[in-house]
Amino acid sequence: MSDEQELGITESKQYNTGEWYAEVVQKAELANYGPEGMSGFIVTRPRAYALWERVQDYLDTEFKATGVQNAYFPMLIPEQYLEREKDVVEGFDPEVAWVTHAGREELEERLAVRPTSESIIAPYMAQWVRSHRDLPLRVNQWTSVVRWEATETKPFFRTKEFLWQEGHTAHATDESAWDETLMRLDQYAAMYEDLLAIPVLRGAKPEHDKFPGAKKTTTVEALMPDGKSVQAGTSHHLGTSFAEAFDITYTDEGEDSQVAHTTSWGLSWRALGALIMTHSDDQGLVLPPTVAPEQVVVVPIWQADTQENVLDYAESVADELEDAGVRVELDDRDERNPGFKFNEWELKGVPVRFEIGPNEVDDEVVTVVHRPDGESKEVPREDIAETVREEFDEVYAKLYAAAEENLEENVREADSRADILGTIGQHGGYVKAPWCGDEDCETEIKDQLAAEIVMVPLRDEAAEIHAGEECAVCGEGAEETAYFAKSY
Amino acid sequence: MSDEQELGITESKQYNTGEWYAEVVQKAELANYGPEGMSGFIVTRPRAYALWERVQDYLDTEFKATGVQNAYFPMLIPEQYLEREKDVVEGFDPEVAWVTHAGREELEERLAVRPTSESIIAPYMAQWVRSHRDLPLRVNQWTSVVRWEATETKPFFRTKEFLWQEGHTAHATDESAWDETLMRLDQYAAMYEDLLAIPVLRGAKPEHDKFPGAKKTTTVEALMPDGKSVQAGTSHHLGTSFAEAFDITYTDEGEDSQVAHTTSWGLSWRALGALIMTHSDDQGLVLPPTVAPEQVVVVPIWQADTQENVLDYAESVADELEDAGVRVELDDRDERNPGFKFNEWELKGVPVRFEIGPNEVDDEVVTVVHRPDGESKEVPREDIAETVREEFDEVYAKLYAAAEENLEENVREADSRADILGTIGQHGGYVKAPWCGDEDCETEIKDQLAAEIVMVPLRDEAAEIHAGEECAVCGEGAEETAYFAKSY
Repeated sequence: MSDEQELGITESKQYNTGEWYAEVVQKAELANYGPEGMSGFIVTRPRAYALWERVQDYLDTEFKATGVQNAYFPMLIPEQYLEREKDVVEGFDPEVAWVTHAGREELEERLAVRPTSESIIAPYMAQWVRSHRDLPLRVNQWTSVVRWEATETKPFFRTKEFLWQEGHTAHATDESAWDETLMRLDQYAAMYEDLLAIPVLRGAKPEHDKFPGAKKTTTVEALMPDGKSVQAGTSHHLGTSFAEAFDITYTDEGEDSQVAHTTSWGLSWRALGALIMTHSDDQGLVLPPTVAPEQVVVVPIWQADTQENVLDYAESVADELEDAGVRVELDDRDERNPGFKFNEWELKGVPVRFEIGPNEVDDEVVTVVHRPDGESKEVPREDIAETVREEFDEVYAKLYAAAEENLEENVREADSRADILGTIGQHGGYVKAPWCGDEDCETEIKDQLAAEIVMVPLRDEAAEIHAGEECAVCGEGAEETAYFAKSY
Repeated sequence: MSDEQELGITESKQYNTGEWYAEVVQKAELANYGPEGMSGFIVTRPRAYALWERVQDYLDTEFKATGVQNAYFPMLIPEQYLEREKDVVEGFDPEVAWVTHAGREELEERLAVRPTSESIIAPYMAQWVRSHRDLPLRVNQWTSVVRWEATETKPFFRTKEFLWQEGHTAHATDESAWDETLMRLDQYAAMYEDLLAIPVLRGAKPEHDKFPGAKKTTTVEALMPDGKSVQAGTSHHLGTSFAEAFDITYTDEGEDSQVAHTTSWGLSWRALGALIMTHSDDQGLVLPPTVAPEQVVVVPIWQADTQENVLDYAESVADELEDAGVRVELDDRDERNPGFKFNEWELKGVPVRFEIGPNEVDDEVVTVVHRPDGESKEVPREDIAETVREEFDEVYAKLYAAAEENLEENVREADSRADILGTIGQHGGYVKAPWCGDEDCETEIKDQLAAEIVMVPLRDEAAEIHAGEECAVCGEGAEETAYFAKSY
């Protein structure tokens, strides 16, 4: 039956990760590719957008609880504003989409479709900040941005337009800006760990790979099952460089003028890419119950003589879950058999399935099946709305444990160039190595293996470097511990 | 004191509405004008964006409860897609901003920044709809759109980029599409009436003023205090014209191919313009408690000897409100006197003020002041979190009643051209007149007074036309009742 075939994932996650990912995205109805003439763009379908809404809800609540207000700035930015930013940074020029005409007229000055909004937000922050009493000032916006990268499209990982949030703050002191930078990084990490069931590493980008103009770029990195790292969110301590370029100054308590310290931090729909990639399998999408559009599907299994009883029972279970706030779908379609339904909801990533047949009705139980591993059990019909929460916790714990195991097994150490190359080549994952801090030593690895330094540890973890250790690549004195990995 | 002067609104709402509006928007920190080279664009500051978030929350909840799913489509649309729409409609060409270059390359085909998304959404709906079981299909997106209109900027009313939602649906039957059209119109009306305290009229646009390609365009219209009407949201029954142009077809129960019937409906941040314009006054912004970022400001009034008692008491009141979910601000700034604080929070539109001095502490009461009219009363400190809800209801009722009175007093009838012109010229508001349905008769009024037909009644109200009535302009047989008004 052709419908059955359509449901099947034909590619293998283990052996053909890229094609498998593309197939899951398409068959689980998460995204379509953009139209002709629009390669690099995707259409985000409702099932994926619902996941993004849960990421938004989580972060927006955390942001607002910690002093952030949302705002909205124009999507177009005059070229001279980007130029002004060039006092600080090289900018995004090669990736900018330019509006040159409006209606039938050519514009006097072309306008960039925002690749990021520092250069249009900073001048307004400069207007809004007058006194130390106006600080810290924190604004955030949820928007899309456009960056015209010429690489192959990978939905949610590499697209010319992507959804994200960008937060921008101004502070009286360097310390306050640094605390802000780390607070946002911690909120990103918590979102991955508590909502998406993905453990992450926190670190800093090497000096040569910072956000242009930043004093320090911090990152959360998530390890995918194929051994590559995803830069899953970044938080930048911008120091005073943007504030100086855009005149963000304030009057301190002694009535003296001072330059503010700023930060910016962003997280994009790559979070969805990481989510899909981490948990899904050769049957299709796997989602934790925290974000799944449907947390439970109830599949009634009947014959003509049992139909009425089974459907009544299944409906009462579904109603009770719905009343308790569970996102539940009762699949009582007549034209599909249970096997087809199982496959379809597995493909779509529903984490918990309830099977209800005549036996369940007689015994006043429900058969519960966990999506990730097929574990099956009978649970009492009574208190089902409470029981299901425990099942959700179990499913979440399984997903997190599997991802954590993958991460823990794939952080290895190396102390020579050959060791770095060999270890990543053989296992993927992260390879920790003492590093002198020189970009050239990264380049040597990059040239041979397309692996790079994705992060160095933050804070106390820097104490891992012991006196007398040598850079694994050049043998000079080591300054940091570098995490080498291939990355998305 | 210069700060005090900055707080004052200098323009008069009654005599100088346009300037007064611009001043309120700026001084209540709602929006700034765009940067140099970007006339027509605005920056939406947090206090205004928070209002938009409440509009979003309200509508998004209603939409989802009635089968709508959010999605996201590319912000850029290939020119050939807009051309394809031209089979149906004239399109938005004169208002389109064009991306012609990306990075250092010229694009092969230029891309429109979306002015609306029918032409990119319809082709995907065509892919997603296969069978009658896929219908109705309902998607919505919250985005900004760009329309390069060359008129004078008026924040939230006329801007080149604006925030909105656009819903798009496909149905098996004409009746289902028409029901959808009216359901969304009713949701828009309910949002104005239940959230923004603005009564609205529901109607249809005249045939010659429909959305291009639509079978029927319905509208909610709100009357502003200056006598002009705001088109506050529109819902379009598109018939089969877009479905035919973009091949949105489905297989019916008899396995025959059928063309779908579609709708689209949009509401923009004009809702914020209408909100600001309707309730505010010469002291600044006035907001209903339903949407105000701060619903209550607590202003403690102390001398040195009473400071501790007053502040403790004020804090306990504010804490109790906050615990009960009230959005409350305790203004305990030392460097500002109470009069300054009253003015500042009135300017910012906080609907309820609590004044707390030594007398309130002694008597275990709170002095409550309503923003819209200055009504002041003492209420018991006990059960304050419940009492304040009643105060909110009272304030809401006052705002709604004032807006309703304005509307009811300003719907007049006319039965001749001179009467239409004279009545609108003298009073503004709506003038109802029998109308033959010919655009020329509207043009005659438009040319002389810049008033137009903003709507004709829907459904049963069409029964208002009595046999034998004549068009007030040309004297031919009347077909409809036209509502003439000046409009935003």
